[in-house]
Amino acid sequence: MTQQSPLQPAIPGQTLDSKDASNAHRFPDQQIAGIYRAIAERRDMRHFLPDPVDSETLARLLQAAHQAGSVGLMQPWRFIRITNRSVRLDIHALVEQERRLTAAALAERHDEFMQLKVEGILDCGELLVVALPDRREQHIFGRRTLPEMDLASAACAIQNLWLAARAEGLGLGWVSLFDPDALAQLLNMPAGSRPIAVLCLGHVAEFYPKPMLELENWARPQPLSAYVYENGWPDAS
Amino acid sequence: MTQQSPLQPAIPGQTLDSKDASNAHRFPDQQIAGIYRAIAERRDMRHFLPDPVDSETLARLLQAAHQAGSVGLMQPWRFIRITNRSVRLDIHALVEQERRLTAAALAERHDEFMQLKVEGILDCGELLVVALPDRREQHIFGRRTLPEMDLASAACAIQNLWLAARAEGLGLGWVSLFDPDALAQLLNMPAGSRPIAVLCLGHVAEFYPKPMLELENWARPQPLSAYVYENGWPDAS
Repeated sequence: MTQQSPLQPAIPGQTLDSKDASNAHRFPDQQIAGIYRAIAERRDMRHFLPDPVDSETLARLLQAAHQAGSVGLMQPWRFIRITNRSVRLDIHALVEQERRLTAAALAERHDEFMQLKVEGILDCGELLVVALPDRREQHIFGRRTLPEMDLASAACAIQNLWLAARAEGLGLGWVSLFDPDALAQLLNMPAGSRPIAVLCLGHVAEFYPKPMLELENWARPQPLSAYVYENGWPDAS
Repeated sequence: MTQQSPLQPAIPGQTLDSKDASNAHRFPDQQIAGIYRAIAERRDMRHFLPDPVDSETLARLLQAAHQAGSVGLMQPWRFIRITNRSVRLDIHALVEQERRLTAAALAERHDEFMQLKVEGILDCGELLVVALPDRREQHIFGRRTLPEMDLASAACAIQNLWLAARAEGLGLGWVSLFDPDALAQLLNMPAGSRPIAVLCLGHVAEFYPKPMLELENWARPQPLSAYVYENGWPDAS
């Protein structure tokens, strides 16, 4: 029950076996390359240019999000565009408050954390809040034992938006440094709903070559091989 | 605070304004088309052909998942390949048990639910369980007020895998009909970890033209326009 898989990643398009090459549902190579490139080059962005996001581009990105699958087809995502500068400033203030509380909770890493840039709320061209709606308890399909699958579906929608944005040359940052109750109150959200993301979307000067927290030595990512098991969890070592 | 956005989706590539066309970070059109096509044609599959998934393809898909961003770079995903037929049968039995309990909980929709095909566990070429690891409480960055962001990150990883699989011509179904404690016990998972997905991956005869639950009239999806607000939640109506 403890064997780890010896899977080694291959470069897309280079090592197709005959079954894959004959797969009638396979996309053309350039389209496949686009998928893998977006996945590889997507970054959680915190640095933005002030240029606005074109409204048709934004519409495409939101439609991409909305095409995500959802548990029981419940579509548990709501998108709140923040176009009022005053509301944007209020959201920034909420995030700044939580940033300081997080720094305090991090104790010995307080100073290191405070030096990180963790959001671009005031700079990005478009600001969105994503929330789970109220009255989700009526949806039982796929959620009787795992009620959190609504969040999972909404996260899949955000990932769609993230990848499409990267392909269109736009950066996105998912900020989760906020008190959800305070943000819900600010945005007039009903009881039972829950904000899950402040999304900073916009043009960028450049994309980070690696995750910013890796570049800043906040954390060292582990290779995939450490996280693939076979038929069960490995024995504690 | 109640205005809904008049955003209308446009067809990718048809209506680029000059700013977008001049965006240096924008992918080539064919690559962008690949992203939007994968997003549009991805389906939650329950019907599979028995052919195995090529190991190099599987490695690419897992690597795609592993390239997802994660809150605080915590990489909260573990992938358990189920290669033992006996374990696969046990997982199927757990899901079948929960399917009946869900049907009972659905009361007046019991019979309708029981007629749906909700999983392809015994048929798919590759079966994976995805789990959140134990000892997640040490990760505070981005999770002090929203501890569920670990699940959100893992869902983004699964969405990467889902889209890459679609581009490679493979189907994937995310099954969440199981008792997480029972599945954790079956797979020798440590206290504090939590399985979030049984993923059925494999070759398919065809992809559903629409979500299966829509085709089966289980639910009627709402248009995006109903779910995009501006500067706050709309007043209750």
